[in-house]
Amino acid sequence: MPQLRIALAQVNACVGDIATNSAMIRNWARSAVERGAHLVAFPEMVLSGYPVEDLALRKSFAAANRVALEQLAADLQEDGCGDALVLVGHLGRDDEGPRNSASFLHAGEVVATYHKHHLPNYGVFDEARYFAPGFDLPIVRLHGLDIGAVICEDIWQNGGPVAALGKVGVDLVVCLNGSPYERAKDDARTPLVAGRATEAGAPVAYVNLVGAQDELVFDGDSMVTGRDGRLLTRAAQFTEQLLVLDTDLPAGEHTTTTVPTEPGTVRSPAAFDVQRILLQPDPVPAYEPLPAPPVAEPLPDEAEVWSALVTGLRDYAHKNGFRTVTLGLSGGIDSAVAAALAADALGADAVHGVSLPSDYSSEHSRSDAADLAERIGCHYQEQPIRDMVEVFVGRLGLTGLAEENVQARCRGITLMALSNQYGHLVLATGNKTELAVGYSTIYGDAVGGFAPIKDVPKTLVWQLARWRNAEAEKRGEVAPIPENSISKEPSAELRPGQVDQDSLPPYDLLDEVLDRYVESDRSYADLIAEGFDADLVERVLQLVDRAEYKRRQYPPGTKITFKAFGRDRRLPLTNRWRELRPDQR
Amino acid sequence: MPQLRIALAQVNACVGDIATNSAMIRNWARSAVERGAHLVAFPEMVLSGYPVEDLALRKSFAAANRVALEQLAADLQEDGCGDALVLVGHLGRDDEGPRNSASFLHAGEVVATYHKHHLPNYGVFDEARYFAPGFDLPIVRLHGLDIGAVICEDIWQNGGPVAALGKVGVDLVVCLNGSPYERAKDDARTPLVAGRATEAGAPVAYVNLVGAQDELVFDGDSMVTGRDGRLLTRAAQFTEQLLVLDTDLPAGEHTTTTVPTEPGTVRSPAAFDVQRILLQPDPVPAYEPLPAPPVAEPLPDEAEVWSALVTGLRDYAHKNGFRTVTLGLSGGIDSAVAAALAADALGADAVHGVSLPSDYSSEHSRSDAADLAERIGCHYQEQPIRDMVEVFVGRLGLTGLAEENVQARCRGITLMALSNQYGHLVLATGNKTELAVGYSTIYGDAVGGFAPIKDVPKTLVWQLARWRNAEAEKRGEVAPIPENSISKEPSAELRPGQVDQDSLPPYDLLDEVLDRYVESDRSYADLIAEGFDADLVERVLQLVDRAEYKRRQYPPGTKITFKAFGRDRRLPLTNRWRELRPDQR
Repeated sequence: MPQLRIALAQVNACVGDIATNSAMIRNWARSAVERGAHLVAFPEMVLSGYPVEDLALRKSFAAANRVALEQLAADLQEDGCGDALVLVGHLGRDDEGPRNSASFLHAGEVVATYHKHHLPNYGVFDEARYFAPGFDLPIVRLHGLDIGAVICEDIWQNGGPVAALGKVGVDLVVCLNGSPYERAKDDARTPLVAGRATEAGAPVAYVNLVGAQDELVFDGDSMVTGRDGRLLTRAAQFTEQLLVLDTDLPAGEHTTTTVPTEPGTVRSPAAFDVQRILLQPDPVPAYEPLPAPPVAEPLPDEAEVWSALVTGLRDYAHKNGFRTVTLGLSGGIDSAVAAALAADALGADAVHGVSLPSDYSSEHSRSDAADLAERIGCHYQEQPIRDMVEVFVGRLGLTGLAEENVQARCRGITLMALSNQYGHLVLATGNKTELAVGYSTIYGDAVGGFAPIKDVPKTLVWQLARWRNAEAEKRGEVAPIPENSISKEPSAELRPGQVDQDSLPPYDLLDEVLDRYVESDRSYADLIAEGFDADLVERVLQLVDRAEYKRRQYPPGTKITFKAFGRDRRLPLTNRWRELRPDQR
Repeated sequence: MPQLRIALAQVNACVGDIATNSAMIRNWARSAVERGAHLVAFPEMVLSGYPVEDLALRKSFAAANRVALEQLAADLQEDGCGDALVLVGHLGRDDEGPRNSASFLHAGEVVATYHKHHLPNYGVFDEARYFAPGFDLPIVRLHGLDIGAVICEDIWQNGGPVAALGKVGVDLVVCLNGSPYERAKDDARTPLVAGRATEAGAPVAYVNLVGAQDELVFDGDSMVTGRDGRLLTRAAQFTEQLLVLDTDLPAGEHTTTTVPTEPGTVRSPAAFDVQRILLQPDPVPAYEPLPAPPVAEPLPDEAEVWSALVTGLRDYAHKNGFRTVTLGLSGGIDSAVAAALAADALGADAVHGVSLPSDYSSEHSRSDAADLAERIGCHYQEQPIRDMVEVFVGRLGLTGLAEENVQARCRGITLMALSNQYGHLVLATGNKTELAVGYSTIYGDAVGGFAPIKDVPKTLVWQLARWRNAEAEKRGEVAPIPENSISKEPSAELRPGQVDQDSLPPYDLLDEVLDRYVESDRSYADLIAEGFDADLVERVLQLVDRAEYKRRQYPPGTKITFKAFGRDRRLPLTNRWRELRPDQR
C-alpha cells in the first residue's frame, strides 16, 4: 500500500492580514517538508483569516487573495516545497460570486480549487450571505493516492461532497476547518469525523484553526481518523501545532467521475462535477515511518473554558494592537476573574487594575481589590469617584436609579480617560447572567473594548475562580483570587446595603432558568411544566426580553456557548413579544 | 368579465404584538368590507410584525401566530367579513422549519397558505437564516377569478413563483410586502411590479407595510398594475391607507396544476406544487364600480427622506414606550436638524433640548441653541459641564485627546442622567459622515437610544435643513433651523479654535469619496482611476477601515440607503485589511 506522510498545520491566522498569513503558511509548510511531509494541509480561509464577514463582498479583497495565492504557490516552489501538495483555504471569487475555497498547490501552481458546498447560516454563521455554494469536486492523485478536499460544514451536513467522494472513490479526504469552540464541542467533533471517514471509505484528515477572531475562539483539535473511524492522532487544543502522521493507504486507483444519482432526489442540487487530476501516479519508494504521534486528550471542562477565555482575550488585544489592559477592580468575583484571565493572557505587567470606590463602597471592596492585585502582581491604583459623582448629583438633582447609574458612569469615564491617556484596552467585567437580565449600567460598567467573561454565567464564574485557585495551589503558586471575593455576597454597591439578591433571584436558580430559556429555547409553558415557580419564570423572562438594547451595546467578548449574546442571537429592539402566560401578553 | 373590488391595507404593525396587530387587521378588514371589498390584502408578516429576527426561531412565538391566525379567521367571520377573501402575512412553522407565510382567510377558515419562496439574504435581510423556502403554490378561485399570492422578494428575483403562476394561469397576483424604504427605491419598485404583471399575464396588487421597526422604515407605496403593466393606482408614502380599486378582469378559468419545466434547469429547485382551491365559482352580479382612486406621486427627494426620518424616529420612540426625547443642542447643524425632526415626529412639547457648554464653547454655540429651541418651541435648559470636566481633568491629569473626550463624555453622562431621572429617550445626533470616519467620542456624543440622522451624510444634513426651512416659509411658519447653524463652519469645540476641517477633508469631497467607497464598493485603485487625489483617498479609507468598533457601538438610527452603518454592513472588529496602495498594506 502507498505510504504518505501527512502534515496538518493547526495555525492562528489574522483576518485581513494576507501578507502575514502568507509568510506564516510558508514557514509552516517549510517545517513540514523538512519533516518529510508529502501533503501539508492548512485550515479554512487561512490566507484571508476567518470569518471575514462583509470583507467577502469586496472585490479588491478577493483579488488580493488570488494574487497572494498564486504568489504563495511560486514561493513554496522556491522554498523547496514544490514536491509537496499544499492545501490552503482562501477567499475565492468567480462569476457565481465570492467562494469559500480550498486550493491545491503543487510545483509552483494552483492545480485545483474546491469551493465549500454546504454553507452554514445559523448561530454565528452567515455564509449563505457571503458565498456561492460549490459543485466542483477535484480529486488529485498524489503518489498513487486519490485525495479529495472538503471544508468544515461539509462534514456537519449529510448528503454532500463527502458522500459524493465516497461514491466515486477516494483514498483520503482532507477537511479544512474554521470550527469555533463551544463547551464540549470536541465530544461531537471526533465521532463526526470518524463517521465521515466510514462514509467516504477513506481516512479523514481534519485540520482546524486555533486562536481567536473577535468573539470566536478556534480550539484546534485537529485529528486524523482511519477509514474504519478509529482515531489515529489528535492535536492539543488552543495551541499552534504541526501534526505529522505517516499513513499507509490502499490505493483504489479510482477513475469514476460521475456521481450516481439516487431516485427521488428531484430537489437535491448536489450534482457534483468530479475532476480527476493526475500529479504523481507512482507511490513513493518505501521508507521507515515515523512513530505515531500521540492522541491528545480533550481538556477537562474548566481548563478548556479557561483556555478559551485566555485565548479570546489575548488575541483580541494583540490582534488589535493593544499590549496593556485596564479594568475596574471592585473587590467582587467578576472583576477578580477578569483580572486573573488578563494576567494569564497578557502577563501581570500588562494589567492595570483600578479601584474606583464611592461613598457606598464597603471597606472590603478596596481591601479585596488590593489583595487581588497583589496576588496577581498587576499594577494597581485607587481613583475615588466621590468628587465626580457629587458634582453630577448636585448639579442635576439626581435621585434613585439616576444617582445609582451616575456612579457606574463616572467609573466608566475614568477608565476610558485612563485608556485614552495611556493606551490601555478597557475590559468590561460583566458576566452572562447580568447581561441576560440587563443588570448593568449602559455607559457605566458596560464601558470597554472587550468583555472577557461576557458569555460566562455567574455560577460558572465562581466555579472557574475556585478551579484557577486550585490549579495555582497544585503548582505551588499563589492563588490569584482572594477567598473573600469568592465567598462574599455579590453587590453592585450603588446604594447603602444593596446586594444583588434584592433585585435578582438566587444565582443558581437564575442560571438554571436562563440556560433553559436562552440556550434551549424553552417557552414559559415548558418551564412551568419542568417545575419552576411561575412568578420566578415570569420575572426572569420579562427581564431577559427587555434587556436586548443593553446587550447590543455591550462590548464583544469570547463566546463559549452556542447561544452567546453577540452576533449570533439577534432580537428586534422594538419587540412586544413576551413569553408569559397567554393572558398576560 | 368578472368584477372584483380589491382593498389593499397599507398598515403599521408592531413586532411581537400579535394581539394589537390582530385587532388592527380586524378593524381594517371591516372598513374594507364596509366599502364593498371582495378581497382585502395585508402586508408581509403583518400579524407578527416584520422583521422578527431570531423570534422566528422560537416555537412558542410561531405557535402563538398560528392560534392568532385561526382566531382571526373566526373573528372576521363574526365581524361579517366572512364572504371576503382576506390575505394575511404571518410567521408560519411546519416540519421544514419556520416559514414566512401568507394565509388566505375565508368564511371563518384558513383556506390556504403560501410560503415565501425567494428568501433575501443580503443587506438587512437574513431570511435564509430564519425561513425554509416554500414550494406550494395555492391558487384560490373567488367570484370566478383565480388568485395567487407571492411575498416581497418573490418579485425581485427572476424565475420564481410569479413565472410559475404565469405558466399555469392566474387572473390576479397579490404580492404581500415588507419592503424597506431606500432613497429613490420607488423608482425601481413601480417598473418591477409592472414587469411581473406582464410576466404573470395578470394584474399585480402590491401591498406594503408603513411605519418603522428599529432601523428600517417601510414607506408603503402600495399599488396595482394592470396585466399590461399600466399603473392603475398607487398609495401615498409613509401613511396608513386603505387603497380600494374596482377591477374588471378576464376570467381565465385556468385548470393546469403542473408547471411546465424548461430544458437545462437541472439545478433549479423550482418544482412548485400548484393547488387550485375553489371558493366561489361564479362572478358577482354586475355592479357600478367606484371611481378610480388616484395615483399618488412619489415624494420629491428631500421630502421623502425627511418623512422617512420622521417616521423612523416617531415609531422607534412610541413603539418602545417613550413619549419624550432629550438631546444635546450644540448650536451646530446636526443637533438642530435632529431637534427639528424630533419636533415634527413627536411634537415640540416632547422635545427637551439641553445646551451643555464647556470652557471651549463659543458664545454662538449657546445663542444658536437657544434660538433653535425658541424657533421650534421645545423645552430648553443650559447645563454647563465645566465643573464635571474640571474634576476629571484635575484628578486624572488628562491632556490632549483624553481631555477632549472627557468633555463629550460629561455631556453624555448628563443626558443619560436626565433620561434616567425624567424618562426621556436620549437622541444621539451624529451623522453618517462622522460615523464613517470615526469622528465621534464613544460614550460621549455617541450616547443615546436612537440616532435619527445616523444614515444622513453631512452634506445632506445641510440640504435637509435648507429644505425644511424653505417648507416652513412656504407655509408661512417660522423656519425651525437658525441660519447661523447652517452657514457657520462646523466645529466639535473640544479645544480652542478647533474646526472639523482641521481633522477632515472638506465635507463635499469627503462625502463624495465615502459614497463611492461605502455605497459603491470602489477600491483604492478605482478611486484613483476616477481622479481623486491619492493622499486624500488613502486618508479617508484608513479612517473608515479603522472606525468599525465605534460604528458598532453607535445607537440604531433610521436607514435611508442600501449600505447604512447598521446591521447590514458588518466588518470584523479585528481586521488588518487596508484598502491602500499595494505596497502599503
